[in-house]
Amino acid sequence: MPELQTVLDEIAAEARAATERGKVAAYIPELAKVDPGQFGIAVLTHDGALFTAGDADLPFSIQSVSKVFTLTLALGQVGDTLWNRVGREPSGNPFNSIVQLEYEHGIPRNPLINAGALVVTDVILAGYKPREAIGLILRFMRSLADDESIVIDMDVARSEQETGFRNRALANYMKAYDNIRHPVEMTTGVYFHQCAIAMSCRQLAVAGSFLAGQGRHPLTGQKVVSAERARRINALMLTCGHYDGSGDFAFRVGIPGKSGVGGGILAIVPGKASIAVWSPGLNKVGNSLLGSRALERLARAMDWSIFGP
Amino acid sequence: MPELQTVLDEIAAEARAATERGKVAAYIPELAKVDPGQFGIAVLTHDGALFTAGDADLPFSIQSVSKVFTLTLALGQVGDTLWNRVGREPSGNPFNSIVQLEYEHGIPRNPLINAGALVVTDVILAGYKPREAIGLILRFMRSLADDESIVIDMDVARSEQETGFRNRALANYMKAYDNIRHPVEMTTGVYFHQCAIAMSCRQLAVAGSFLAGQGRHPLTGQKVVSAERARRINALMLTCGHYDGSGDFAFRVGIPGKSGVGGGILAIVPGKASIAVWSPGLNKVGNSLLGSRALERLARAMDWSIFGP
Amino acid sequence: MPELQTVLDEIAAEARAATERGKVAAYIPELAKVDPGQFGIAVLTHDGALFTAGDADLPFSIQSVSKVFTLTLALGQVGDTLWNRVGREPSGNPFNSIVQLEYEHGIPRNPLINAGALVVTDVILAGYKPREAIGLILRFMRSLADDESIVIDMDVARSEQETGFRNRALANYMKAYDNIRHPVEMTTGVYFHQCAIAMSCRQLAVAGSFLAGQGRHPLTGQKVVSAERARRINALMLTCGHYDGSGDFAFRVGIPGKSGVGGGILAIVPGKASIAVWSPGLNKVGNSLLGSRALERLARAMDWSIFGP
Amino acid sequence: MPELQTVLDEIAAEARAATERGKVAAYIPELAKVDPGQFGIAVLTHDGALFTAGDADLPFSIQSVSKVFTLTLALGQVGDTLWNRVGREPSGNPFNSIVQLEYEHGIPRNPLINAGALVVTDVILAGYKPREAIGLILRFMRSLADDESIVIDMDVARSEQETGFRNRALANYMKAYDNIRHPVEMTTGVYFHQCAIAMSCRQLAVAGSFLAGQGRHPLTGQKVVSAERARRINALMLTCGHYDGSGDFAFRVGIPGKSGVGGGILAIVPGKASIAVWSPGLNKVGNSLLGSRALERLARAMDWSIFGP
Repeated sequence: MPELQTVLDEIAAEARAATERGKVAAYIPELAKVDPGQFGIAVLTHDGALFTAGDADLPFSIQSVSKVFTLTLALGQVGDTLWNRVGREPSGNPFNSIVQLEYEHGIPRNPLINAGALVVTDVILAGYKPREAIGLILRFMRSLADDESIVIDMDVARSEQETGFRNRALANYMKAYDNIRHPVEMTTGVYFHQCAIAMSCRQLAVAGSFLAGQGRHPLTGQKVVSAERARRINALMLTCGHYDGSGDFAFRVGIPGKSGVGGGILAIVPGKASIAVWSPGLNKVGNSLLGSRALERLARAMDWSIFGP
Repeated sequence: MPELQTVLDEIAAEARAATERGKVAAYIPELAKVDPGQFGIAVLTHDGALFTAGDADLPFSIQSVSKVFTLTLALGQVGDTLWNRVGREPSGNPFNSIVQLEYEHGIPRNPLINAGALVVTDVILAGYKPREAIGLILRFMRSLADDESIVIDMDVARSEQETGFRNRALANYMKAYDNIRHPVEMTTGVYFHQCAIAMSCRQLAVAGSFLAGQGRHPLTGQKVVSAERARRINALMLTCGHYDGSGDFAFRVGIPGKSGVGGGILAIVPGKASIAVWSPGLNKVGNSLLGSRALERLARAMDWSIFGP
Repeated sequence: MPELQTVLDEIAAEARAATERGKVAAYIPELAKVDPGQFGIAVLTHDGALFTAGDADLPFSIQSVSKVFTLTLALGQVGDTLWNRVGREPSGNPFNSIVQLEYEHGIPRNPLINAGALVVTDVILAGYKPREAIGLILRFMRSLADDESIVIDMDVARSEQETGFRNRALANYMKAYDNIRHPVEMTTGVYFHQCAIAMSCRQLAVAGSFLAGQGRHPLTGQKVVSAERARRINALMLTCGHYDGSGDFAFRVGIPGKSGVGGGILAIVPGKASIAVWSPGLNKVGNSLLGSRALERLARAMDWSIFGP
Repeated sequence: MPELQTVLDEIAAEARAATERGKVAAYIPELAKVDPGQFGIAVLTHDGALFTAGDADLPFSIQSVSKVFTLTLALGQVGDTLWNRVGREPSGNPFNSIVQLEYEHGIPRNPLINAGALVVTDVILAGYKPREAIGLILRFMRSLADDESIVIDMDVARSEQETGFRNRALANYMKAYDNIRHPVEMTTGVYFHQCAIAMSCRQLAVAGSFLAGQGRHPLTGQKVVSAERARRINALMLTCGHYDGSGDFAFRVGIPGKSGVGGGILAIVPGKASIAVWSPGLNKVGNSLLGSRALERLARAMDWSIFGP
């Protein structure tokens, strides 16, 4: 087994030199401004050691990576009754997202696609005002990352608020089936803010580490979820975490992960490590191009695939 | 860790007593005749020890479980060029199968759904007559199972031949996109025969064991595929192996598996064990009801989920 | 040819006696309260004679029948440039509405389905405040019906406003493609009010009569649209006017028509007559059950099909 | 009203001079060889007078125009029970054809799309051998065209037989739902031959004239169908006769018509005329480009739209 730091340094050096870097997400104007030349990676191992390379301390918009954490929160609030309102199956190509929603009467396929994450946020909202729910989510992220400095990028939140019509369409659509319980503007408002949370690779790797540790946070010692729930969230990340590239990510990289259009990916090696990688350029299916490659290289070098011993 | 044999015995006893047993597949007349009261399980561990319980020596129609083996064969013949003709993504609900085929211009989503498996069989056919290709597949199964007594159930093959219009539709559809290269009757003919191979749980667990052993067969010592290819086939089984129940199987059981409408499931615990389970009654999404439950119990008892340490 | 009044009296008598009356629309709570026992019919012939039978003077919610009139208004405002934002093809089954919207990048199939009518309303809104646009539409209806007493049923408008999430989903969806230009709440607000206009059969038959008269109103003498535009609106009503029952209506009745979920239907016999019929109970595809039957009987008795001499 | 012959001469002159001529169908190799420079038109009026212009006596492959005639034949054989196996609704965009077939359990949307026409041919086959059924259809065409010289272009039939995999897919798909009752090769074989019938505009206008004459043939005096059935077939042609351009054809031209990928269109002016036009180049939705334009011009010049007096 090679030295982890050496591997990370090589990966970061290659990423820096890469000419093909993918395309920065354009549909959220504020995200389109991000410099595609950036790359960072951070790994927190099960024994609490942290390794980083590249721009590992620059904050970026975590976007859909937030879905893993709101899922964790919602499961903590309502337990397995959550599964009455959202499925656990991969969703197929993007064209199918709204088709399947119609075919399946307003029940989204899984909690890691937009429709499902909106339901999850709607669950979290119960009993709170939107501002309180946003505060709840932000405090949860700060607590998991063990870092009180994490904030929401309000420019990004505003940008999403101004352009998020597809998410509003999904929310209204599910509301027609009574699977969104709050006013659409409330639920989407909280959702847009959770997506706009800004974190660095270092913070994100720390925040997700409980999923690699059977539910227990290796640094804070906090029991965030049960070992079984950690396994199940990992399973969902593996089958559904990379949009219509989930199968390919499992095939190539072989570990659970969740990507966001900000270019971040959180990946979990059960029992071994929590990884956060970030590079803003996306591949054709909307996942970080260099981030995916970095994880493929890292998993191979460290023999971290969950599909082989 | 409990004794494996004890766990299997308990599982078999429970299965014998179960009243809710699912529904035997009705669309292939010959399969509809099977007694739903049967249940068998076999586990081959990485060190070559075999454990069984229940009707582990009764042969059943492996049906779609064969797709794992023809995929292995085709990859051996044409390598990664196979992926030009078939994808690696989960396929969503059954309604979407043909929709996605149309949307994606005749390229099936993955090799473990019918459309994809037909392409795989079409690849294997190249250079052979149908009878030769059937012989090739059968000999591959005998060699992997280390058992020359394995045969094709010709009544089942004939029954499928008489009723397999949906598969012919898929094959013609892909042929319109030139993604089936042989006459449709040839490709579907070979496919119907591969599905009609009859094997016992014992034989199936032995046949699939190379996938748990980094590509090497624990009994025969044969290097069937590379360690990387074994990992990748496992990844495909996890994301795509249970039709529209793949996400749920990953969520509940947490190990790669491939089911067939004959009621069999092959499941792989990388580095640890190869499992075959069989019970003819199916759940709503077409996977063995008692077989899925048995695997959930077994994986939990032995701590075999790949999503937790 | 029989006497028109005699035919209408017979049709009304039969309708009164009918036991199978369809189901009143339930998804708009205010509409669900309507008594299904009612039936009215009115015919204005090309020479300005008016014939009625049954509850021809009771006002009902015109709902989607309003789409014919807003289409006329919008074409008057922007002419054929309207067709850059909405198609002219039948839309297939209801399941396909949102699928096709996605497939066709936010351009609805035709102006007589909800998505298309929302775009039409959005066109009318340009340069106006919502209240002004509602006023404009209402005045247009009063002028065509030659009756200043027509009003909007504010209970129905409110009821739609509270439950119209599917329409909001469509509008947001099209806004994501920039095919809705005003805030979604504005466009849907105007739309909910136009649907809530209450008119009697008598008023509706008079209002639609310009379509039977080559664009000229037989009572007021007003040239509402050109003869060619009247023909084209009639063509759209024939191919798209009855949701997924349009083909069947053309097959059975053979004249252009537009139905609404309030149970009203406006039907046009070019050069001969304008017909309004109303009965609240709907058939399986959402068109008035007794209304459709009445039109079938009437068209046959008077030899009014446009598909035979 | 202008002189019909003068109008036809002008239309033919314009067509001859047109530079934009559409694209000849490429997916049937034999059709791809046809010279796109050709154009013919023929009109048979209700009083039995025949007018022609351009290449009105050159035979071309009638292709889907044959669907109108096999529909007539099948209705003669089984009457309205036909509608248990095929619908009467427009089918939406081509992408939806197979989707809707799946959604609607093997019942095609209407008899004028491929899936529906295959069912119609399957109905005609009952009690016959394929060769007999082909003979039956051919004799029906000869009788309607009052011309014994009409033959099947065997090169085209063979070309379709070699490439018609999409039609075979549809047929197998419907056979899975038991909506094709004969072996797929039989039904598609007859279908490929009916499409390959070669006729001139003159022959086709004569053959379709019963639809303009309340079911009675103006030249032979034969009562082919009842007046009601003629109306209903006309209604189907109007709503479903031009694939996904049916709405646009109704909007622009305003008369029932059925097109074929050979570039022919049969159009009916109830009570007035039967029209056949041919030009091999197709528009984007697969209908003859110059043929559609010619019909639009002709209908406007003669005031033949059924949507205005």
